[in-house]
Amino acid sequence: MHKILIAVAEGSEEMEAVITVDVMRRAGWEVTVAAIAPGPVICSRKVKLLPDREWREIDPLEYDALVIPGGAPGVERLMKDGGVLETLRIFDECGKWICAICAGPLVLQAAGILKKQRLTCHPAVKEDLHAGMWIDEPVVRDGNLITSQGPGTCFEFALTIVSTLENPATAQKIAHGMVFEF
Amino acid sequence: MHKILIAVAEGSEEMEAVITVDVMRRAGWEVTVAAIAPGPVICSRKVKLLPDREWREIDPLEYDALVIPGGAPGVERLMKDGGVLETLRIFDECGKWICAICAGPLVLQAAGILKKQRLTCHPAVKEDLHAGMWIDEPVVRDGNLITSQGPGTCFEFALTIVSTLENPATAQKIAHGMVFEF
Repeated sequence: MHKILIAVAEGSEEMEAVITVDVMRRAGWEVTVAAIAPGPVICSRKVKLLPDREWREIDPLEYDALVIPGGAPGVERLMKDGGVLETLRIFDECGKWICAICAGPLVLQAAGILKKQRLTCHPAVKEDLHAGMWIDEPVVRDGNLITSQGPGTCFEFALTIVSTLENPATAQKIAHGMVFEF
Repeated sequence: MHKILIAVAEGSEEMEAVITVDVMRRAGWEVTVAAIAPGPVICSRKVKLLPDREWREIDPLEYDALVIPGGAPGVERLMKDGGVLETLRIFDECGKWICAICAGPLVLQAAGILKKQRLTCHPAVKEDLHAGMWIDEPVVRDGNLITSQGPGTCFEFALTIVSTLENPATAQKIAHGMVFEF
């Protein structure tokens, strides 16, 4: 069973956080929503999430994959969080999975782990990416990196993570249960 | 500006609740997430939502539309809630909008407001529907009723609500910002 960590902050995109968590839990994985500040997380469209844990309470190295959702104000906060950036660098050095969607890849850039990988992000923020090779696809996988474009590509993003880390049949079964074509 | 009410309970499907709320707030509408019990809502895949209000604190008649998300355990609770059932009956009598997704239409059936309308729901629960005319489409609109099938059809559900109550151009603009084809 995979152990997945998702980092959230005030202003994170609630659909991207919730779709990813829900789909990965349908795969039977242990998923922890960790907030970088105490208390409930007020998301980008004012949905209020109670995280499972606070980032400082967990050991990120216990996890197999780190997921970074979008939402510009959330991404700005995650980009300034030393613990999140350091974890991204360690995950990258160890070849652990790193997944980011929408504006989330900007956090990877802030951590200094983007070099020449093929990746994507929300078209509206692609000018802010100065590393990696941007591809106009809903989901792009290169090495240990899985990236995606926005809320509307998030089911495909989450199912690609399941397909890659678990197997395609599990992803197909989950998609079918959600009435989603994958 | 439309005022929308979404009813949630323990076990509601978090993706369906959050996608609908987020998309409708992108339309600039006032959206209230009302829980039928006190405290945080533990959703179907253990995402914890803090509702905006408790159902007993609000006046449902102030709203233009009522949205019922799926998630079997949440739907079972909503089906037993007299306040929700009575509101559905009043909304239907007044011709106000009623929107339900996944197993959500079973709550409409419990309220006794399904007659011969064309509607849809999750294919896995269609045998439990003994009223209405089930159609195998992602989203079905008939009169004041908008219904849909599951998490994977929820963007289309929410955007259809925006397109119908506001206008198609607004729905298209929101879809574009989410990187979603509508």
